[in-house]
Amino acid sequence: MTASDDRRYLALALSLGRRGQGATWPNPSVGCVIVKDGRVLGRGWTAPGGRPHAEPQALAHAGEAARGATAYVSLEPCSHHGKTPPCTDALIAAGIARVVAPMADTDPRVSGQGFDRLRAAGIAVTTGLMVDEAERDHAGFFMKTELGRPFVTLKLASSFDGRIATATGESQWITGPEARRLVHAMRLRHDAVMVGAGTARADDPSLTVRDLGVARQPVRVVVSRRLDLPLMSTLARTAKQVPVWLCHGPDTDPTLRRTWEGLGARLFACDVKGGQLDPASVLQALGGAGLTRVFCEGGGALAAALLGADLVDELVGMTAGVTIGADGLPAIGALGLGRLAAAPRFRLREARPLGGDVLHMWERAGD
Amino acid sequence: MTASDDRRYLALALSLGRRGQGATWPNPSVGCVIVKDGRVLGRGWTAPGGRPHAEPQALAHAGEAARGATAYVSLEPCSHHGKTPPCTDALIAAGIARVVAPMADTDPRVSGQGFDRLRAAGIAVTTGLMVDEAERDHAGFFMKTELGRPFVTLKLASSFDGRIATATGESQWITGPEARRLVHAMRLRHDAVMVGAGTARADDPSLTVRDLGVARQPVRVVVSRRLDLPLMSTLARTAKQVPVWLCHGPDTDPTLRRTWEGLGARLFACDVKGGQLDPASVLQALGGAGLTRVFCEGGGALAAALLGADLVDELVGMTAGVTIGADGLPAIGALGLGRLAAAPRFRLREARPLGGDVLHMWERAGD
Repeated sequence: MTASDDRRYLALALSLGRRGQGATWPNPSVGCVIVKDGRVLGRGWTAPGGRPHAEPQALAHAGEAARGATAYVSLEPCSHHGKTPPCTDALIAAGIARVVAPMADTDPRVSGQGFDRLRAAGIAVTTGLMVDEAERDHAGFFMKTELGRPFVTLKLASSFDGRIATATGESQWITGPEARRLVHAMRLRHDAVMVGAGTARADDPSLTVRDLGVARQPVRVVVSRRLDLPLMSTLARTAKQVPVWLCHGPDTDPTLRRTWEGLGARLFACDVKGGQLDPASVLQALGGAGLTRVFCEGGGALAAALLGADLVDELVGMTAGVTIGADGLPAIGALGLGRLAAAPRFRLREARPLGGDVLHMWERAGD
Repeated sequence: MTASDDRRYLALALSLGRRGQGATWPNPSVGCVIVKDGRVLGRGWTAPGGRPHAEPQALAHAGEAARGATAYVSLEPCSHHGKTPPCTDALIAAGIARVVAPMADTDPRVSGQGFDRLRAAGIAVTTGLMVDEAERDHAGFFMKTELGRPFVTLKLASSFDGRIATATGESQWITGPEARRLVHAMRLRHDAVMVGAGTARADDPSLTVRDLGVARQPVRVVVSRRLDLPLMSTLARTAKQVPVWLCHGPDTDPTLRRTWEGLGARLFACDVKGGQLDPASVLQALGGAGLTRVFCEGGGALAAALLGADLVDELVGMTAGVTIGADGLPAIGALGLGRLAAAPRFRLREARPLGGDVLHMWERAGD
């Protein structure tokens, strides 16, 4: 097996793992490929809900042929008895000769112990390949484990001049159908879609994934300090079908909270800081509830709160060829920057046409 | 000669013609290639200042070999005695057998008459090839001839959220060195660089082309209703070296006007409409003075005035990966739109990374 073969099969395992993104929380989405004599004998990825894991599925697929094969796994196999038996034991029992994985898991119940257990059973272990790709794929799971908060993607679809609505509140449609389709595909790859209360009130959004033939929907999170959201809204009416989570301040009316719970919403009391809901507290609550990847779609106030607290990991811009002018609604609220050097900075990852709009994707600078 | 050969040599003539953009006003920038038996015998493009024209230069280059050759010209050859003898006569005298050009000139002194004169002399004339490209290249000259105003490129370099400075006025540097270099190259391809009075006051810009080893500079235009620009500014101090044109309202102080004329500036009295300088009147004045291509670099008020009057032909965005927030200075001032359907719309032509920023270029929708 050459190093380039290793990279090729590991890339396949990573791409399988990405299929589960958005559907496996609180578990990581892992991919696994079983290979012997240059043939792929089994493939698997973490099932929706996080179980079964990738490895037993790939091993079941390979069957007896797995004996003496190499297993490519996009993350260190688990070694602890959780809700499933340890994957290390399944690999050992199947007679796997070698395991290739980018890196150790950061979950303290696994970290390094999975590899140790495999080596103790005489299995060769190779790590250190495709580390950057794996870190990107598992960023949400790692952040939840290490920082207690999910990875945050902030998506802002705006006019050429950074506006999301006219002065009169008209916002449909600024970007075109290709941009809207991509938004649905991006929602699907996240555990939750999140908006601020102003957007929830102004747009009455459903925040679901549509036209992609999916059954599982991301959680819908609304950040609303006062919980003053319309009780007849689309979110309220559908909270029993698709989860609605509301992050609110400590001083909300108990009757209102009970009403929302009765409608099916899950409530999270978060801290207030400087008169606003503290975005760090909101994300800690969401991480504590198991979310690893959150897709924030604005509006301006929530975007500014997240950016101001340095809590945006990825920034996705969709820019339309329409100009709205300074009297329109800004995509990002006031940041109160003293100096330009203090402004949140991002590093460009991709820029290309998307239908009649421009797609530009950025990641936090300094990462 | 096949059609694909014709397109290839005409594309060469067009690219030669583009070399003169920004330097030939009030004349068009034309390219010419003389070809015989698959060999390029002569090449020429309109010289700086607009004379000599492309054809006599290409013919001089080809010499006696031009007899029986084909001349590819990016615009109909002129047929009138202006400051130079007619190019048609030069082509006839050189014994050219065939002329290929995309289209007729729109200048009424030329339109169709150049081709007629060539045909009358027994020269075969082919037109209709690469018309879109030629219309784009000559758009400024055609607009000046047909509408009396120059082609307007509006360039806005801004933060991710469409801001050109922080609340405290800090604007350097939002975009990176690659974007700034491209701005200088774009200035060079325009007859004039134009800014509003606010930008002239805030930034004290020189508006010259730097670091590209050029001698000829575009005209520098400032739009200032009251002519209240600092007399110690860079523009004021250098107005005798590189032209400074000031477009002002009808009610400015005569002493101030004389002072600016004494500094070397050329003054244009323009109309006021709704309390603001009328951008259409400004562009008519600039077209009347011979400008065919104007590169507007803001600020927000001038950008909004041009967009609101539907006077922007090309929109160039340079977007940086920095967020400034709603308290920053907007790239485009208030447009007072009632409905989103009334917002100025542009069609995407190109989007790509430019250093660490995003370059996106748009043209007026519906053109």
